[in-house]
Amino acid sequence: MERVKTAQLYQNAEAFSGKAITVCGWVRSVRDSKTLGFIDLNDGSCFKGLQVVFEADKVDNFAEIAKFNVGSAVCVTGQLLLTPQARQPFEVHASSVRLEGASTPEYPLQKKRHSVEYLRTIAHLRPRTNLFSAAFRVRSAAAYGIHRFFQERGFVYVNTPLITASDAEGAGEMFRVTTLDQTNPPRTPDGKIDFSKDFFGTPASLTVSGQLEAECMAMAFGQVYTFGPTFRAEKSYTQRHAAEFWMIEPEIAFADLEDVMQLAEAMMKYVIRYVMDTCPQDLDFCNKFVDKGLLDRLQNVLDHDFAHVSYTDAVELLKKNNDHFDYKVEWGCDLQTEHERYLTEKVFQRPVFVTDYPAGIKAFYMRANPDGKTVAAVDLLVPGIGEIIGGSQREERLDVLQEKMQELGMNEKEYWWYLDLRRYGSACHGGFGLGFERLIMYLTGIQNIRDVLPFPRTPGSAEF
Amino acid sequence: MERVKTAQLYQNAEAFSGKAITVCGWVRSVRDSKTLGFIDLNDGSCFKGLQVVFEADKVDNFAEIAKFNVGSAVCVTGQLLLTPQARQPFEVHASSVRLEGASTPEYPLQKKRHSVEYLRTIAHLRPRTNLFSAAFRVRSAAAYGIHRFFQERGFVYVNTPLITASDAEGAGEMFRVTTLDQTNPPRTPDGKIDFSKDFFGTPASLTVSGQLEAECMAMAFGQVYTFGPTFRAEKSYTQRHAAEFWMIEPEIAFADLEDVMQLAEAMMKYVIRYVMDTCPQDLDFCNKFVDKGLLDRLQNVLDHDFAHVSYTDAVELLKKNNDHFDYKVEWGCDLQTEHERYLTEKVFQRPVFVTDYPAGIKAFYMRANPDGKTVAAVDLLVPGIGEIIGGSQREERLDVLQEKMQELGMNEKEYWWYLDLRRYGSACHGGFGLGFERLIMYLTGIQNIRDVLPFPRTPGSAEF
Repeated sequence: MERVKTAQLYQNAEAFSGKAITVCGWVRSVRDSKTLGFIDLNDGSCFKGLQVVFEADKVDNFAEIAKFNVGSAVCVTGQLLLTPQARQPFEVHASSVRLEGASTPEYPLQKKRHSVEYLRTIAHLRPRTNLFSAAFRVRSAAAYGIHRFFQERGFVYVNTPLITASDAEGAGEMFRVTTLDQTNPPRTPDGKIDFSKDFFGTPASLTVSGQLEAECMAMAFGQVYTFGPTFRAEKSYTQRHAAEFWMIEPEIAFADLEDVMQLAEAMMKYVIRYVMDTCPQDLDFCNKFVDKGLLDRLQNVLDHDFAHVSYTDAVELLKKNNDHFDYKVEWGCDLQTEHERYLTEKVFQRPVFVTDYPAGIKAFYMRANPDGKTVAAVDLLVPGIGEIIGGSQREERLDVLQEKMQELGMNEKEYWWYLDLRRYGSACHGGFGLGFERLIMYLTGIQNIRDVLPFPRTPGSAEF
Repeated sequence: MERVKTAQLYQNAEAFSGKAITVCGWVRSVRDSKTLGFIDLNDGSCFKGLQVVFEADKVDNFAEIAKFNVGSAVCVTGQLLLTPQARQPFEVHASSVRLEGASTPEYPLQKKRHSVEYLRTIAHLRPRTNLFSAAFRVRSAAAYGIHRFFQERGFVYVNTPLITASDAEGAGEMFRVTTLDQTNPPRTPDGKIDFSKDFFGTPASLTVSGQLEAECMAMAFGQVYTFGPTFRAEKSYTQRHAAEFWMIEPEIAFADLEDVMQLAEAMMKYVIRYVMDTCPQDLDFCNKFVDKGLLDRLQNVLDHDFAHVSYTDAVELLKKNNDHFDYKVEWGCDLQTEHERYLTEKVFQRPVFVTDYPAGIKAFYMRANPDGKTVAAVDLLVPGIGEIIGGSQREERLDVLQEKMQELGMNEKEYWWYLDLRRYGSACHGGFGLGFERLIMYLTGIQNIRDVLPFPRTPGSAEF
């Protein structure tokens, strides 16, 4: 008698055919007539469950089993039979069904449809539902696919710090991190908070990006990537923003914007293919019940080269359709989601790289183009989402970077280490940031970022 | 002419023999005579560098090359020649050496030994040194090895939240996370801070463990693991503690303490083997210059089963040697590092699991043993480090857990969701936490946690 996972059975049922096996999991439903019953058992190892057949003359607790509440934890031992004619490919004929942990009729996940809004209030239980089990399994596979992609190519995974005394992009509201007594903090003689007494001896915050530190590592290892949490303290209540989310930030040396785009396209295709290969049951469910065009859209991405367009040309294309948009497009404006989606969904009908944005709407570290107006920035727009990746070639010229920082009133002294990278063996380099939750939304069709994070952090919400 | 990484050459030099290749990297040293010179070039793709031979009659800028400062970024094109008789297995005979970014004589990493203390002050440059290049490459490989281990076994990777309104272990000082104005925070009529106006509407902190949330996920997926940052706001100045570090926390359902130990042993051996296979150059360096017994010790771990001893028996063994210890051992005391290392290094001479600790020194969620005194806890001790893993079987019995929480004066209402796991389909389960930096110290022999974190956060230190 072998302890097995349902996933093993779906991978190779023949190997277990006719054998006695034990499967432990949770009861999704129980049906019974007088002497025969069925349990839909799910052990979480894959999306689909296992049909357990129990018969009055084969188990010694038939009446008990028939009364199991939904959500009960049970261990089933029995013989695996292939059932190629039936709706499910195999079933277990139980010789023993042992209750591991009971459930109650008050179990919040009875067999019916629940709203995602309600399920968010029981984040500790919702991974037991079809939707969230699929979402988080896809999340796990996508994370691993990303690691595989970079590791196979020799990238070094680097953990950039989360607590920081500098504000990476000079933009975005940040969470303060402190151990000072908030009620009566130590103060300097002039009444200000005395941060010299705080844990780090200086004001500290949660990072909004690991890019600048990743650049340090890229100038040592050539190719690196981060994969870690990132924070934004914006009181945003949209479906697309969370206060705590995960980012992937590769950075490559001796590379220009073209190399950055090639890397981004290869990575996106690799991850999509990896998740399609490893999570077919989960994606099938999403394709049926979340977003009916999902699988076609993903396959379409694999089958075509990504499009390329300059910001300047994109603006010309959009201006012709300004009557479609709430925000009218003009050269120099930041593209809104409605514009991004129009470009990728209507104009190009596939993922598109938009390059060379006006310097004024992009970060200080992006490389100035020869035209004096634009920078070597790139956003990747995908159907259904809009921007999923933002990247750039970085300004590797010390004098140009210093001039830019002065122009923006930035304090060079705070960035001495970042400038050092341009003093000692500078090299053209670039990278991008991929919002991991945006990727999971893209891979599942789920529309709300709260539903792809196990325990989402949003304004007013950090309970559990 | 093909752009290649040095690592590719060390993997299969024959494939490039006689061919024209281009390698881009940083100059570690330049030597020259009148017409012949050598560059030690390192591109970060592997530990070892590439010898570049440049000759006055083959390149058009011999004099310029000969004056390159250490740290310069260059791109070299030339023919790869195998040199089986020489100290290095191959070299490149340059037809072109192009300066990508200059360095200066002030470059802080001149070719001499620097103290690790000094190198910590230039964390942005130290990954370009032998020691830190090895440490961070091992770190990357170990991280991937861990993901591989769990993914191959069907574990679901889960991202537990970092910002939390609850204190997971009820222990350990935590960082407060806030967006309130610290100088003049909003106050309630009785003068307290009005946290209802803070970002999350309640006091929030940085997590000290994702375990409780991981338990929620394990009760849906059966087998899960976390791998993410964790925080401790303790003003500890030891070599073993950082304020921000990474943890791996697997959690398995329908599993007891024995299963937890089997998982931990399998994981440790897998990761050691993976790093030995993928980072031989890095480990060789560590074995030569950091810790001369390193490779023998790692091989020894692979070759033997881990030992097992109960806490009670371990205390008996230690008491016999109490004259060796600063802290004398008595049943009921927590084991200090000196005791842990004595057990694993002197008594067992291999990794050892110590099990069944007194309930009073362990966390509330650990499963009570039938003896009424101990809990089903386990620590894994390893030579050179002491404790590297701490785990337990979790208390899955609702009434026993509630009684324990009352005994400790804990507020049940704050843990309603954790208790729900015991109300609806509870199952015996357990898991452990592995401090990732401790693992890297173990794998490299590096003694200070500040030297295995790219940008360590310790009291007074969060600059970059």
